[in-house]
Amino acid sequence: MEPSDSGSGYVQSLARGLLVIRAFDETHPEMTLSEVARATGLSRAAARRFLHTLVHLGYVWTDGRVFALTPRVLELGFAYLSSVSLPEIAQPHLERLVAEVHESASVSVLDGTDIVYVARVPTSRIMTVSINIGTRFPAYATSMGRVMLAHLSPDELDARFEQVRLERLGPHTITDTGSLREELARIREQGWAMVDQELEAGLRSIAAPIRDRAGRVVAAVNVSSHAGRTTDSHAQQEFLPRLLDTAASISADLRVSPSGGAHLAR
Amino acid sequence: MEPSDSGSGYVQSLARGLLVIRAFDETHPEMTLSEVARATGLSRAAARRFLHTLVHLGYVWTDGRVFALTPRVLELGFAYLSSVSLPEIAQPHLERLVAEVHESASVSVLDGTDIVYVARVPTSRIMTVSINIGTRFPAYATSMGRVMLAHLSPDELDARFEQVRLERLGPHTITDTGSLREELARIREQGWAMVDQELEAGLRSIAAPIRDRAGRVVAAVNVSSHAGRTTDSHAQQEFLPRLLDTAASISADLRVSPSGGAHLAR
Repeated sequence: MEPSDSGSGYVQSLARGLLVIRAFDETHPEMTLSEVARATGLSRAAARRFLHTLVHLGYVWTDGRVFALTPRVLELGFAYLSSVSLPEIAQPHLERLVAEVHESASVSVLDGTDIVYVARVPTSRIMTVSINIGTRFPAYATSMGRVMLAHLSPDELDARFEQVRLERLGPHTITDTGSLREELARIREQGWAMVDQELEAGLRSIAAPIRDRAGRVVAAVNVSSHAGRTTDSHAQQEFLPRLLDTAASISADLRVSPSGGAHLAR
Repeated sequence: MEPSDSGSGYVQSLARGLLVIRAFDETHPEMTLSEVARATGLSRAAARRFLHTLVHLGYVWTDGRVFALTPRVLELGFAYLSSVSLPEIAQPHLERLVAEVHESASVSVLDGTDIVYVARVPTSRIMTVSINIGTRFPAYATSMGRVMLAHLSPDELDARFEQVRLERLGPHTITDTGSLREELARIREQGWAMVDQELEAGLRSIAAPIRDRAGRVVAAVNVSSHAGRTTDSHAQQEFLPRLLDTAASISADLRVSPSGGAHLAR
């Protein structure tokens, strides 16, 4: 029995159970009961109850000594992906775009001050960090993030700026709030964003907004390429028209989807 | 307070909270409190407590009337993906394979009687069903599933056969247990599997096993193509040598990874 489950309405044992799932990662793919207790700050008795519940539900596997997540955990993540419908709508458009420009293309949404990838068609591994569905980056240093930040109301933008410190992530990252606000105004005006080596050295990315039925910017689509392979003006000439076409096509498909993309607006 | 949380060690409120997350899907991207209660079988009061806990944790968003999942839910699914390390190891090998054969390639693991996709590089949309990370298919009707079933112990195989009914999913699906066992013996012998229009009309797939440090088959890699575009013997000549190379390369990388792939063996 979780003492804090009573009264207040906050279900502490749900929070703790999710914490147990998230305790497993690349460096801790398998853990003993003691290791899970240590990683989560739970007592051994509590960790044991959560682990055995997750084993019973099929989310965790054990050989009696160590515990590990099962592929069933993916179904939780995909409850989100299937509920948004955007990834499925975007996928064929991304595939067409990649076939045309021979560079990787992605779609992301804004979550707080991060962008989160929800669809991606890669070509080659130009980035030193690997990108997957669910990968997060700070919105301010990415072309997709800037497109979405640029369309927030001034109040919403102020609120997000308060939650984040602008750090120098790549050789050209804008780390000054004033300059970033000017850049966002420019992006809102021109309808797209380009980021040259701000998230990572060697990486250039160009992004355009995806809009829901009401015209609200709910996501962004980008093409990313190696900065050494193309110049800014080449990227703009080669990629921008096709990128804007893709953004328009995804927006059009989203508008006629059952929800019209309305549930993506936060 | 969840009455069933006491005593037995089973944390019912964790099970119920996960049920709330999974209630959201393509046809229910947004739900009111009443709709969540109906979908999960929970009382309105219980549904309210779980929803508000998930809102507090950042997994659910609400405008006060309707509720929807946030992208943070993806982090749960990716706790699994990052814990297995196989997707990251496999990705560059899949990209190389797809560049060579110009057909889609994937990696999956076995979960009960299903295969679950954990990495995929698509080329074009040849399937009528869409495949993503987390997608499941019955193992018996897929080339990757058969490769993994073929290497189970006889007892394990019997146990899985007891949990599944062989259904005719495509024009050529093997639906007879005896014939399937013979095919599995042949696959174990030859070291790869081919499935021609058993999962779906028009789809041909060829798969090879991925092994952990101890030599156990822990995953499979495949190339899938349109049955009309290639013959069985062409697929075998064109794809098989490269597929076997890819399986060997992924297995080699997995062996030198921190866990040696041991945590994938179930």
